[in-house]
Amino acid sequence: MTSSDTRVDLNADLGEGYGVWRLGDDHAMLEVVTSANIACGFHAGDPTSLRGTCAAAVSAGVAIGAQVSYPDRVGFGRRFLDIAPGDLTADVIYQIGALDGIARSVGGAVSYVKPHGALYNSIASHRSQAQAVVDAVVALNRDLPLYGLPGSVSARLAEAAGLATVAEAFADRAYRPDGSLVPRSEPGSVITDTATICARALRMVVDHEVVADDGTVVAVAPSTLCLHGDTPGAVEHARAVAATLREEGVTVARVT
Amino acid sequence: MTSSDTRVDLNADLGEGYGVWRLGDDHAMLEVVTSANIACGFHAGDPTSLRGTCAAAVSAGVAIGAQVSYPDRVGFGRRFLDIAPGDLTADVIYQIGALDGIARSVGGAVSYVKPHGALYNSIASHRSQAQAVVDAVVALNRDLPLYGLPGSVSARLAEAAGLATVAEAFADRAYRPDGSLVPRSEPGSVITDTATICARALRMVVDHEVVADDGTVVAVAPSTLCLHGDTPGAVEHARAVAATLREEGVTVARVT
Amino acid sequence: MTSSDTRVDLNADLGEGYGVWRLGDDHAMLEVVTSANIACGFHAGDPTSLRGTCAAAVSAGVAIGAQVSYPDRVGFGRRFLDIAPGDLTADVIYQIGALDGIARSVGGAVSYVKPHGALYNSIASHRSQAQAVVDAVVALNRDLPLYGLPGSVSARLAEAAGLATVAEAFADRAYRPDGSLVPRSEPGSVITDTATICARALRMVVDHEVVADDGTVVAVAPSTLCLHGDTPGAVEHARAVAATLREEGVTVARVT
Amino acid sequence: MTSSDTRVDLNADLGEGYGVWRLGDDHAMLEVVTSANIACGFHAGDPTSLRGTCAAAVSAGVAIGAQVSYPDRVGFGRRFLDIAPGDLTADVIYQIGALDGIARSVGGAVSYVKPHGALYNSIASHRSQAQAVVDAVVALNRDLPLYGLPGSVSARLAEAAGLATVAEAFADRAYRPDGSLVPRSEPGSVITDTATICARALRMVVDHEVVADDGTVVAVAPSTLCLHGDTPGAVEHARAVAATLREEGVTVARVT
Repeated sequence: MTSSDTRVDLNADLGEGYGVWRLGDDHAMLEVVTSANIACGFHAGDPTSLRGTCAAAVSAGVAIGAQVSYPDRVGFGRRFLDIAPGDLTADVIYQIGALDGIARSVGGAVSYVKPHGALYNSIASHRSQAQAVVDAVVALNRDLPLYGLPGSVSARLAEAAGLATVAEAFADRAYRPDGSLVPRSEPGSVITDTATICARALRMVVDHEVVADDGTVVAVAPSTLCLHGDTPGAVEHARAVAATLREEGVTVARVT
Repeated sequence: MTSSDTRVDLNADLGEGYGVWRLGDDHAMLEVVTSANIACGFHAGDPTSLRGTCAAAVSAGVAIGAQVSYPDRVGFGRRFLDIAPGDLTADVIYQIGALDGIARSVGGAVSYVKPHGALYNSIASHRSQAQAVVDAVVALNRDLPLYGLPGSVSARLAEAAGLATVAEAFADRAYRPDGSLVPRSEPGSVITDTATICARALRMVVDHEVVADDGTVVAVAPSTLCLHGDTPGAVEHARAVAATLREEGVTVARVT
Repeated sequence: MTSSDTRVDLNADLGEGYGVWRLGDDHAMLEVVTSANIACGFHAGDPTSLRGTCAAAVSAGVAIGAQVSYPDRVGFGRRFLDIAPGDLTADVIYQIGALDGIARSVGGAVSYVKPHGALYNSIASHRSQAQAVVDAVVALNRDLPLYGLPGSVSARLAEAAGLATVAEAFADRAYRPDGSLVPRSEPGSVITDTATICARALRMVVDHEVVADDGTVVAVAPSTLCLHGDTPGAVEHARAVAATLREEGVTVARVT
Repeated sequence: MTSSDTRVDLNADLGEGYGVWRLGDDHAMLEVVTSANIACGFHAGDPTSLRGTCAAAVSAGVAIGAQVSYPDRVGFGRRFLDIAPGDLTADVIYQIGALDGIARSVGGAVSYVKPHGALYNSIASHRSQAQAVVDAVVALNRDLPLYGLPGSVSARLAEAAGLATVAEAFADRAYRPDGSLVPRSEPGSVITDTATICARALRMVVDHEVVADDGTVVAVAPSTLCLHGDTPGAVEHARAVAATLREEGVTVARVT
């Protein structure tokens, strides 16, 4: 049974086109999510399209997060790069600043940071890169929370540095017993059945647990659920998750 | 004779390396100038080196300006690009935001905007691109002044939009009778004799005039002089100009 | 009535994705066209996707042309760039060489050159840029023909340099009485009715004429027709044109 | 005593500027080396400067090698990138093709391949990336030898694929007892004393041995020595090595 104050944020990646190229359906997703992880130009996002996405997020009352990435447009930020910590710190500051400028020009502002792709995965365990990302946020704006996997190295270092963190869970991804995600390269890592995704989302948010790939029940306590915006059926899955949560009395609201 | 309140700002382009590549002597120039036009990544400047240059500017008490450019790193922003106004506006916002983030991370902030290279030249006469740059500053931060040639289309549109402008003159460039610069492609366009440069600088600042290439005396009233940082003898010229001005009682001080 | 030896080449732009981003339906178009203008990386095309497109073209027996561009990925090569002729020559050589390497690695080769977007339009009248493109082909491989508008400056300079040229016409574009295309920015510049496009294609190829936007009948003698691959209905239009031509006895075959 | 047929190739990295930025003294190095590893645009090298460097190499009778890299200009190709093998293969083909086009346009051709920076180091041990580079050369041109460390994974895979390899040694780098290089991050990894460098070069070429950092004498049999072109004193070191070898009767000549 859902307590009257059960609430969750829904986030998704947006602004991931580049020039003439489009990816995902930003406008449809902005009707569902409460927080938009918007690309900052290093893996995707040209200034014009980012400005349009930010304006649409502002209109929809959706929070704007800086989806910072390795500098790797051709690889869409999905490849590990052995970047020096000082360079990573500067890259992250540059990206947050750029997106914040774009957001402010349309009446918004960056209100959180969510690393993208390979960087997100890397800093869950790579200490010096994780510290580099934390250093960037501390140097630029200590009030920006960091979205991430609870228990990850990046989350722990962020907390040690006095940053707020927002615990994230993935309703459409398989989990390991230790609370980490099954890598995308493995079979069964991504769940595609809408009803299963909705059931997992609800259990995560209301009961604070998820069933891992070996049947273990793992404790989770997400403040936000990540919804994928660029997979087949993405928009439908996202709408179904949001509807399911609301029907069960969960308040879906932005956390920043 | 110099009145007791004659003052001028000295600006130069800085932060124009990229990765392993360096250009000019930023540290030497920061001892001379009062305002640093710092690259924003589109024609030059990687985040790490920009952060170092911003930190050095903050230490030196030098103002930080966003040296915004066309997106053209291989051409160093020196080639006209027929970019749509909306795209140019977004590009300029992105660049100012990025550099402002970098500057804030080291205790500074962007306090003015100076377009670079072909963009600087273009918006002196190209109305829609000039308006696009003005629109960017208006949308992001109306308190940022625009450096530029007095009387140029960009300066007039900036003033019409309520932006402050900072009138700029070039002591080492030949002028035309109409107050425009002789293009670099023409012989005699760049003055290389130190004594001549110093004498022109002084006459511009104190007497508010410059002798054009046909002998005409042209009225100028610069609030800032642009010093080149990457030409042979650049640092020596800059030091000589600053020393000459100070010896004649001119207050050399930042304008933003 | 069609003479027994009436023939025409059909070309379209392919390989215009980048990284995760896709554009157009290369595989469908390869079933229709006889020559593929394949991007070379400067406006579109990453090495992996270019290699896939080249391999598919080789399998389909379709000629591979180097679709060279200004260096402007974010603008998709659609913006005029005031590049120095020597730089343009080197850029074109680099692109042809890169695509030729990719093509050779899958058993093909670049057999012609077709400039893309703003470069295509520019060299129809901009003498020094047109000469720069011609110089590139002459320096690299004099056996590569240049696709282009007959009568354009680039075509005339190519012929003067001893290069072969392939006269091109556009069945879905409105013409001016002087044989130039109505710019895309003007209403009515692009024809979208399939039957009209097919009729114009047939008249161009068989009767060597096209009706301009003022009703004038203009003489054309295309060796190749350009079919657009990335507009709504593109594949259907292309199939209909090819079918119409074949039904009327025209031999559709590659020209290089 | 040197046998009458002792010979060695001298190679160095060239063409590593970008746009306005220069690195090293290509013209001075071309008077010393017999093989030029020329950048291909992915870590350094714009088409215009590459064309100038290729033309100078052709004039000097110096062999042109494709210095292929990860796509990482801001990091100068010095950072490991976890790129998929198929993408690396396509990237290498694209780069060799591009440089070969540039070289052919000035009367030369690519005659060997030498991976750059982090890629060079990575494929000494990273099997799938090493195979990807080998696959690229095999697919494009089996006649191109691969420069590399003897015994490295890349050399072994190249030989297994039927490619020629050219064994390389570094006179100014400290060695480990196993024949690998001491990483640059460690103290003493780079030797800066000219006499020591010359003595090591001579011993490597004539006696086929080098003293490792623990005093062990390691067998080497280099067909080529790599000379660094962008470190302080680089040109002087290179000249001294070449002079020492010639004085001792070694024939300095290109190997491809």
